Amino acid sequence: MGKPRIIISAGDVNGVGPEVAVKALMDPGVFSSIAPVFAGPHRVFRDVAESLSAPFRIVEQSGEPERSDEIPCVLPENCPVPERKLGQATPEAGALAVKCIVHAAETVMRGDADALVTAPINKAAIHMAGYEYAGHTELLAELTGTEDYRMMLVAGNAHVVHVTTHLSLRDALEAISEDRIAKTIELTDLGLRRLGIAVPRIVVAALNPHAGEGGIFGDEEKKEIAPAVEKSVSKGINASGPFPPDTVFQRLFAGDFDAAIAMYHDQGHIAVKSASFESAVNMTLGLPIVRTSPAHGTAFDIAGSNIANPSSMIAAIKLAARAASNG
Amino acid sequence: MGKPRIIISAGDVNGVGPEVAVKALMDPGVFSSIAPVFAGPHRVFRDVAESLSAPFRIVEQSGEPERSDEIPCVLPENCPVPERKLGQATPEAGALAVKCIVHAAETVMRGDADALVTAPINKAAIHMAGYEYAGHTELLAELTGTEDYRMMLVAGNAHVVHVTTHLSLRDALEAISEDRIAKTIELTDLGLRRLGIAVPRIVVAALNPHAGEGGIFGDEEKKEIAPAVEKSVSKGINASGPFPPDTVFQRLFAGDFDAAIAMYHDQGHIAVKSASFESAVNMTLGLPIVRTSPAHGTAFDIAGSNIANPSSMIAAIKLAARAASNG
Repeated sequence: MGKPRIIISAGDVNGVGPEVAVKALMDPGVFSSIAPVFAGPHRVFRDVAESLSAPFRIVEQSGEPERSDEIPCVLPENCPVPERKLGQATPEAGALAVKCIVHAAETVMRGDADALVTAPINKAAIHMAGYEYAGHTELLAELTGTEDYRMMLVAGNAHVVHVTTHLSLRDALEAISEDRIAKTIELTDLGLRRLGIAVPRIVVAALNPHAGEGGIFGDEEKKEIAPAVEKSVSKGINASGPFPPDTVFQRLFAGDFDAAIAMYHDQGHIAVKSASFESAVNMTLGLPIVRTSPAHGTAFDIAGSNIANPSSMIAAIKLAARAASNG
Repeated sequence: MGKPRIIISAGDVNGVGPEVAVKALMDPGVFSSIAPVFAGPHRVFRDVAESLSAPFRIVEQSGEPERSDEIPCVLPENCPVPERKLGQATPEAGALAVKCIVHAAETVMRGDADALVTAPINKAAIHMAGYEYAGHTELLAELTGTEDYRMMLVAGNAHVVHVTTHLSLRDALEAISEDRIAKTIELTDLGLRRLGIAVPRIVVAALNPHAGEGGIFGDEEKKEIAPAVEKSVSKGINASGPFPPDTVFQRLFAGDFDAAIAMYHDQGHIAVKSASFESAVNMTLGLPIVRTSPAHGTAFDIAGSNIANPSSMIAAIKLAARAASNG
């Protein structure tokens, strides 16, 4: 195949999304290795590229650009483009963000792009616009008719996949079951193979401190987690655990494993963010399309100041390209 | 006052405790700044010091040593000293470890030492010896008649204090209450003042992902945590929060705060350990005596090989000395 065709949705135009997307493509190693397309308002991308003196031109068209220094920019038909109100959550920007995501995802689904990278959206803005999604992942799951999907954080060679995410800790405890854990391990194994890791080494975190200290501090390890690990091993997956949560991620970061399974949102997120990976990337496992995103938000406080760090967006594009190439 | 008198309990003699204790005192900056005493079997400490070619002599006595290159070593009367079985959990070593802790703690309680530093014990060994304590902290709480105590991890200038520790995550959820959080904040404020921080800046982690996302993912933030923060502020404590757990510890490590309050064991432990502080220290807040310990365990797998890293023990001794000097 040729260069992987990566479509990048603008995210909330009042945040740093367009800025980090343009900055990422100003990295010569990124632009030269992919065929990029922006999904979003041409005016916004053009203005951002000009203000950053980007060495490329944003052209309002779909399909392959005529010149190698052009990046196509697409928008759904009849899509209103509001004025940017930098740093503000507005229903107009929320509606636009959702339309760009849907348009970009449909482009990948019908085979006109190989992978989707989503710039950050603002949850309040999309709620103002009348959408109830907790975030990108839920929207994309609905759009693609996907039931089983998982959030993966990728930091360097370390992959952290979450059994549960946007639930209260109380609800997460109820949702953690042998089946759900086994499904998470399976999706992780498939996802990492797609990234080119032949036999992914997967470690499973315990739920309770000290992995329950032999049952003294909780029995989920014995009742749910260990059986899920055994089931996965019996299917030929290289899985191990459960191990104490406060050291298992250190072992992951040290390279002992390719992926760790986190039982709940903050177990995985605290580990990755405390290890201070500036370039952590979010990838959704289980979707029929490749989708990655930077792990940061809209950063309304610095929107428009051109000081946003594009390293997470760069890593997201590279990961999407890698997954698309192996797919 | 003179140099702070620090008594160091041997921990489980089948682990790395005596080794890291001797190595820590071989650091010239440590030995010169304190008056050390070992609580444990003279034979073990002497052999370890010899095998490490330590530039001091371990003397079997209590009270001040005659020479500046001597370190006193004390043991309760009629205390049997088993042969070392390196790397093994034995009831004899478990019983000895507990007796050394009790002897050392009593020495501090009657004013014959200023602070206690405990080398690591093995939980299985103390259980074999018939003690039901979850660890040092519970033993010391009982010994000193302390009801409200909290585990603090110290890593550089970052302090993390836990509202709950050795409970299943399910039980921790039940135990997290406004009162318990407020008490934790109060003990943190007192503890940090004792360490010489005039007005400690204390931040409180939320319980749920995204701090509950305005109540969508849980209401403990509104019902328990925010009221506890308000109560603390009304008492003049510089407390803030609750903030999303996956970024609040980054802000702590970046120096925005002196201490963070963690709702449960792994929330704090994953943050500190993923930030890869080799020299993290455990300190118990709320006890009538100063007590610190290295944050690692007995490391049975490397016991006796003289390769254990003493940095956490060095940090534990320095922290104890600092707390004793300000006390």
